[in-house]
Amino acid sequence: MDFLSETVVDGVRERQFIVGEVTGALWSDPDAFGTTPLLLIGHTEGQNRLKPDVFALARSYVDLGCTVAVIDAPCHGGRLRNERHLELIDDMQRRFEEEPITAADAFHHEIAPQAIEEWHATLDALQGLDEVDAEGPVGFHGLALGSMTGVPFVAQDDRVTAAVLGLVRRETIDERAFEVRLPVQFRMQWDDELVPRDSALALFDDLGSSDKTLHANPGGHRDAPAHELESARRFLARHLGLASTADETPARDVLATRH
Amino acid sequence: MDFLSETVVDGVRERQFIVGEVTGALWSDPDAFGTTPLLLIGHTEGQNRLKPDVFALARSYVDLGCTVAVIDAPCHGGRLRNERHLELIDDMQRRFEEEPITAADAFHHEIAPQAIEEWHATLDALQGLDEVDAEGPVGFHGLALGSMTGVPFVAQDDRVTAAVLGLVRRETIDERAFEVRLPVQFRMQWDDELVPRDSALALFDDLGSSDKTLHANPGGHRDAPAHELESARRFLARHLGLASTADETPARDVLATRH
Repeated sequence: MDFLSETVVDGVRERQFIVGEVTGALWSDPDAFGTTPLLLIGHTEGQNRLKPDVFALARSYVDLGCTVAVIDAPCHGGRLRNERHLELIDDMQRRFEEEPITAADAFHHEIAPQAIEEWHATLDALQGLDEVDAEGPVGFHGLALGSMTGVPFVAQDDRVTAAVLGLVRRETIDERAFEVRLPVQFRMQWDDELVPRDSALALFDDLGSSDKTLHANPGGHRDAPAHELESARRFLARHLGLASTADETPARDVLATRH
Repeated sequence: MDFLSETVVDGVRERQFIVGEVTGALWSDPDAFGTTPLLLIGHTEGQNRLKPDVFALARSYVDLGCTVAVIDAPCHGGRLRNERHLELIDDMQRRFEEEPITAADAFHHEIAPQAIEEWHATLDALQGLDEVDAEGPVGFHGLALGSMTGVPFVAQDDRVTAAVLGLVRRETIDERAFEVRLPVQFRMQWDDELVPRDSALALFDDLGSSDKTLHANPGGHRDAPAHELESARRFLARHLGLASTADETPARDVLATRH
């Protein structure tokens, strides 16, 4: 893990980094003392480490006392795209109007194995940092694209303590949902134009966790109400041992609530 | 509304009251000053105003700054039972082993219209108290039996501001779910032995509210996790204008979380 830059943005310490070929950003409280829990953000489709929504979400977890990391998914945020990627993206865009629900499936199936490996490697690197307790709690917040990678990632990597997942179809996850054992807050939108209701319910049902809660709200894929971000923060604060501060620091920005 | 007794129990002011033939209890902070939001509890099957679970739930809302009222449902808590009631209860008990899901339907259909009217009349009386702002916010927390009455009650009575509902079948509610317009937090248990999953999902779907959130957790009818009580309190605090205190006063007792 190499750090490329360090600044303070809006009161938050921001370090751009690279792990192998993967670009990422790390945010933390500039006045933090000692080790802090890690919070990993799996960004949504079309997002990356430089987008304001991702920063707003990250900051809401920095305010809880976390060190927050995001990495760009393959083909996102200026990462290199090879010939095969370009073909798949072209195919996805061509099919999107007629088949919005399934148009991106081939692309996601192709990048998922790589994206999962990149999260394992990033977590290895993050746990080597002085400010991170290598045995400490790790949260994951990843919806939509973040869950396509996130569900199999948290199923495989038992260093993750608890996860906010959802806004994703059962069909894009394979059988690995059964292997998820950690506490999960699972989000769905009741009228999601990209995730059929039955598919979201089936995925919640398949999660192997005994501690899992489904939250459903009316509206489309990007219409989640602001109070769901507060629920996600409280859930992760509780599982990361930050319960006493979670309720005292409401998120400053609701930009990030859509995912 | 006549008050029959007044005591302080575990730091909470408790007044037993009667409205017409209906027995109830009113709980509030003995040091409260000025008017406070009302919170109505619709108790579950087998409960009544004198049960510890109901008191624990009430106290968790008193701690938020509410004046809390519960009334005994018809045939509950020592209320008179007529010949017809005794027949229906006998029938329900006889059928329960073979048809647990539907055994109580005839009984509930019979008592629901009366129970709904009793809530309207109780709210009339409560809003006449000096300590209650007659134009102020009113919350409702009623699951299972409390929702069989509560769903039609909050659909009809636009004085209610927001409601925690659920653990009830679509089939016991008639068409009135469509008429529910207020913000709702709707609870279901994913493996509820008394409420089939599809029936609970259908009822959530039918609620006419644009602001509604479904919370589902694994386990049977009485297995809701403790964090759902905190969610209910935060939801109602937000809608009753108590948001600033909701997060500072975690419920002192988890007895009441099962409903």
